Amino acid sequence: MTLASWADGSARAAIVEFVEAVTSGADAVPEAERVAVFDNDGTLWTEKPMPTQLHFIVQQWAAAAQADPSLADRQPYQAAANGDFAWLGGAVDKHYAGDDSDLKVMIGAILASTAHESVEDYQASVAAFYRDAKHLTLHHPYSRAVYQPMVELLGYLEAHDFTTYIVSGGDRDFMRPMTEDYYGIPPERVVGSAVGLEYDAESNDVRYSTSFDYMDDGPMKPVRIWSRIGRRPILAGGNSNGDVEMLRFVQKHPRSLSLLVHHDDDTGRGDPPYDKGAERALDVASEHGFQLISIKDDWSRVFPAGP
Amino acid sequence: MTLASWADGSARAAIVEFVEAVTSGADAVPEAERVAVFDNDGTLWTEKPMPTQLHFIVQQWAAAAQADPSLADRQPYQAAANGDFAWLGGAVDKHYAGDDSDLKVMIGAILASTAHESVEDYQASVAAFYRDAKHLTLHHPYSRAVYQPMVELLGYLEAHDFTTYIVSGGDRDFMRPMTEDYYGIPPERVVGSAVGLEYDAESNDVRYSTSFDYMDDGPMKPVRIWSRIGRRPILAGGNSNGDVEMLRFVQKHPRSLSLLVHHDDDTGRGDPPYDKGAERALDVASEHGFQLISIKDDWSRVFPAGP
Repeated sequence: MTLASWADGSARAAIVEFVEAVTSGADAVPEAERVAVFDNDGTLWTEKPMPTQLHFIVQQWAAAAQADPSLADRQPYQAAANGDFAWLGGAVDKHYAGDDSDLKVMIGAILASTAHESVEDYQASVAAFYRDAKHLTLHHPYSRAVYQPMVELLGYLEAHDFTTYIVSGGDRDFMRPMTEDYYGIPPERVVGSAVGLEYDAESNDVRYSTSFDYMDDGPMKPVRIWSRIGRRPILAGGNSNGDVEMLRFVQKHPRSLSLLVHHDDDTGRGDPPYDKGAERALDVASEHGFQLISIKDDWSRVFPAGP
Repeated sequence: MTLASWADGSARAAIVEFVEAVTSGADAVPEAERVAVFDNDGTLWTEKPMPTQLHFIVQQWAAAAQADPSLADRQPYQAAANGDFAWLGGAVDKHYAGDDSDLKVMIGAILASTAHESVEDYQASVAAFYRDAKHLTLHHPYSRAVYQPMVELLGYLEAHDFTTYIVSGGDRDFMRPMTEDYYGIPPERVVGSAVGLEYDAESNDVRYSTSFDYMDDGPMKPVRIWSRIGRRPILAGGNSNGDVEMLRFVQKHPRSLSLLVHHDDDTGRGDPPYDKGAERALDVASEHGFQLISIKDDWSRVFPAGP
């Protein structure tokens, strides 16, 4: 695997220099310690115009409102059924402004959508979504909404005996059905936010409970990395404020690289430029020595070529 | 790796038959699905005369009482300092009789012993214990308190492209420093009970909190398996009541094997026989088709040969 979609710039040079340094010579980092962790939304694939999981959930809510008309005039089902993304986006904006009322309504509906469902039934419904859904603006399957340079980076690291993990604020079990196909990362190496789980002895299944377990974001990322992996990684990649602690965490290893994807591309090849949600990460990037990845300058291509 | 320490009996035959069936021919189980999970205490190594972690903790408490004389007349420090294992064992017996008062004192002291410690400092102190400690009755290092036939089984499974995990009621981070050396199982494949974790931004470390997170036992084992692995394993091994749900969980896979180690060996080669804590597991073994491993009849050797 080569880094064919990377421009010959500073990010590519920093990656190659780091990987060659830690994998060759007498002081190479042992293979077992070559752990690399990556955020998902906005780092490995696009999160615009909305995170993929929101697309899935809105479909679920619309279907629920159709099946049960009593839901049709209640939020968020009403917004979902009517394609009212303004209400859904407004809930997130209100959250950033300190008002969680609509967000709590959404989270309640998210938990209701999987309450008591077996993990394998959910897995099947998510897999069906990935098989059938089209990205809302690209109009092709989500498998082609990944960032081609990052997929190449994952392969390049694996070829140098790194072990790669996803450490995302997204729902762990929503990612697992696609990570092997899209990124070559198996389910046991997917770390994410989680709904509570319960074992149902009667059916011999693990099922979702009605409560949220934890949000794998910000300071929780190093915590989940330790819980799941039990090692301090040496390479981390992210794109937003919620990745700062993870990007910092790897830096206590004597040899590390922290990568921050910067959505600065105004060429129309990929997402429109945005810094929203990444303000703090960009602010501290220089102070902490995060290597910026400028999508505009460092990537020669954003999405994979067509089939 | 051969199964050299297994007698030519029904357990060995069942294991070989199962592994050959799922790894050969057109209907072989794909390598990625060949996941095997094992309890630790009493399954992969001895838990007599006490679980290894209790040995470690008692040493820590005795050291704490020596460093801080105000602890010396408080339990459990007093019992630890005086080598009063009757009090410690009594706390567990009272728990089984429905009285958790002394056990809560012990758990409080366990949490106090790691409160605010970084995970890497704890890792170093546990590694030092494994380096220096001698098993209390075998009088050699804990590396030789493992069950040789089970170590061979782990190797046999790995040689057939299984991925092996530990799923134990023991503390995850107390096991991780030894599992690679003793079993060939790296830290990311160790699932166990856990103290809460917090990220400390100032020191850039993950540290233990003052609260217990979860006990990985009984119905929690399938939950933790899903959370950590994201697949239903096809082989499970255990020895006690707390393993029943895990042994059952694998059975919904179309092809599975559930192994129950039975401590029935009165030959003096290993632990004295005991069924305590395994009553329910032994009761339901036949009904659920668990393959019993009789230590007396199925193992030709219990512990590894000396160095």
